[in-house]
Amino acid sequence: MNYFSSDFKLGILGGGQLGKMMLYATRKFDIYTSVLDPSAEAPCKIACNEFHQGDLMDFNTVYNFGKKVDVLTFEIEHVNVDALQKLEDEGVQVYPSPKTLQTIQNKGVQKLFYQKNNIPTAPFSIYMSLEELIHSVENDVISIPFVWKSTQFGYDGNGVKVIRTVEDLETLPNVECMAEKMIDFKNELAVIVARNVSGEMKTYPVVEMEFHPEANQVEYVICPARIPQEIEEKARKVALQVSEAFQHTGILAVEMFQTQNDEILVNEVAPRPHNSGHYSIEASYTDQFEQHVRAILNLPLGKTESKVAGIMVNLVGAEGHTGDVVYENIEKIMQMEGVTPHIYGKKQTRPFRKMGHVTIVNEDVAAARKVAAEVKQTINVISK
Amino acid sequence: MNYFSSDFKLGILGGGQLGKMMLYATRKFDIYTSVLDPSAEAPCKIACNEFHQGDLMDFNTVYNFGKKVDVLTFEIEHVNVDALQKLEDEGVQVYPSPKTLQTIQNKGVQKLFYQKNNIPTAPFSIYMSLEELIHSVENDVISIPFVWKSTQFGYDGNGVKVIRTVEDLETLPNVECMAEKMIDFKNELAVIVARNVSGEMKTYPVVEMEFHPEANQVEYVICPARIPQEIEEKARKVALQVSEAFQHTGILAVEMFQTQNDEILVNEVAPRPHNSGHYSIEASYTDQFEQHVRAILNLPLGKTESKVAGIMVNLVGAEGHTGDVVYENIEKIMQMEGVTPHIYGKKQTRPFRKMGHVTIVNEDVAAARKVAAEVKQTINVISK
Repeated sequence: MNYFSSDFKLGILGGGQLGKMMLYATRKFDIYTSVLDPSAEAPCKIACNEFHQGDLMDFNTVYNFGKKVDVLTFEIEHVNVDALQKLEDEGVQVYPSPKTLQTIQNKGVQKLFYQKNNIPTAPFSIYMSLEELIHSVENDVISIPFVWKSTQFGYDGNGVKVIRTVEDLETLPNVECMAEKMIDFKNELAVIVARNVSGEMKTYPVVEMEFHPEANQVEYVICPARIPQEIEEKARKVALQVSEAFQHTGILAVEMFQTQNDEILVNEVAPRPHNSGHYSIEASYTDQFEQHVRAILNLPLGKTESKVAGIMVNLVGAEGHTGDVVYENIEKIMQMEGVTPHIYGKKQTRPFRKMGHVTIVNEDVAAARKVAAEVKQTINVISK
Repeated sequence: MNYFSSDFKLGILGGGQLGKMMLYATRKFDIYTSVLDPSAEAPCKIACNEFHQGDLMDFNTVYNFGKKVDVLTFEIEHVNVDALQKLEDEGVQVYPSPKTLQTIQNKGVQKLFYQKNNIPTAPFSIYMSLEELIHSVENDVISIPFVWKSTQFGYDGNGVKVIRTVEDLETLPNVECMAEKMIDFKNELAVIVARNVSGEMKTYPVVEMEFHPEANQVEYVICPARIPQEIEEKARKVALQVSEAFQHTGILAVEMFQTQNDEILVNEVAPRPHNSGHYSIEASYTDQFEQHVRAILNLPLGKTESKVAGIMVNLVGAEGHTGDVVYENIEKIMQMEGVTPHIYGKKQTRPFRKMGHVTIVNEDVAAARKVAAEVKQTINVISK
């Protein structure tokens, strides 16, 4: 197949920042792209060859879009899977597979998949309704504390909550859900696995999420993770096992816990380029976006090793600011060593909206970590 | 000035591959771009915010385009300088300066500039016509062999020729020209200098052009150059001197000879991102395109050091092939370690047309050089 400066068409469902970064690779290779996104202001709107505005959850919109491309991929999980399935049945190459997406879209089904495939994951129970869950708690079938999760992506707002008291149960919506054992973990890790159509597989180095000591929010994604070699190997092995189990094609980001006993438990996966791999644009021989394109087009996978250490900091809208965005002090961070801001192109900021990210690279991970802290203290995403 | 996701407009004259690669940086920073190019098929056509088709040598076209942007730059020297000068006079920020472009557009004026600024360069004489040159040869004012150069870019075809015999003179066109002493050089080197509006300056490491032993054509651009530290320092110093002399804003690529006596002589310069800096996309902390954008917007310059060694191989159309392009064996080179092809997006190949380039990166320059030789032997730019 001739992909380069040819008539071949790659379709991408979703035109957000992940798609935007994927388009750097398609531009570099001059691969023709067609993007579908509901927003006329989508970050992908320029840099693709064709942009179509439409609802990603609408069967006909997705189906008709898919019929006009040679290979179809997505940069967001929230798409109409039935349409993908029909396209696949009719011979369109859809990567990753609609079956994987279907499994992942329901967190309960995802957990059952891990269980069935002997993939280590935290113990859990699934409930069809809030009443069932409450009944289980009242009858001591499960005990507090636990982590409550809505099984469906569709649920608006925060789908995860730590339940510490019986009163906490009252704040939950009445939806299909699961209760997961709270894991006392040393580290939250992630491994990106690439697997191409022929089954060639490669893992990226393990990354570590560093949390804010008080706010309990991920502040830094650090590559390489500051963990012993044996944990690195164990985590990569589990990630490969997950990719194999799904017979996955493309990038699969596997998020995991390293427990106090150094067990590796899979938390959840994303079947696409992922926030935990953004560091790869500056730090890796082959970034995750190019690797995804290579994988779904059955090209040879690129080298996944890092040239240098990389740390990623998300740029989210500051509290109390809504409106036209200003990246306060961005010039100051650009003066710091090895710092690259990525601005996703959303004109409007609002509290906690993901507006961009910053990568800090250095030969020495500790030096990068220092600069990353300065970056975080300096830049502010505010409104005019 | 707020450049990021704002109303600020950057204008770029020329929409070829250099512009295309510059747009990776503007997309990353979400800087609004408007591009002018004569071709409706220009590689820049997508990924800029606005594309205008028009003649870069036409005064009114360039002037009217320039009036609608906040900062104006170019990716090609062959533009209407009078229009740039008028725009600058009327307050539009034009970087690099029209004066620099004017000096560079005439190779004779460029040489006189070096002479005036005590920048080491090969001895030369300028002639207003072929007759004047022949007269000088006949009267032994200059002696054969020498390098003949047309002073004007405008001259169609090959503007450089080595004159080894009196008969060679007969093949020359009757244009303004110069005769330059033939330099017996050890190496052909290049240094990229970045200088921002405030005058902050940085040099990239020295790169080396490796020639094909028989064909006498540049085959590889190698970073770092395999030269002693003292030559490296001397070359960087001369490059800084050139950038200072021009009071240059943006990227300046300085091509030079390292003579048998280890003198450094400036050959010529390009006031823009340059083929000799393409390796920087994969190998450097800050690539030359992002650096150019930083420089002309007076942002702090990024780190110019390399993460790894980089080698660049041009992809040119094979002899005997004209028509729809096919990159034969591109999958094979993508399987090699640290190899990234860049496909410029020209649909039609013809003999020697620049269609793309390939970068090979590795921690070890010798290992990269071996892979580069394999790349060259493997890939072919042919027609269907």
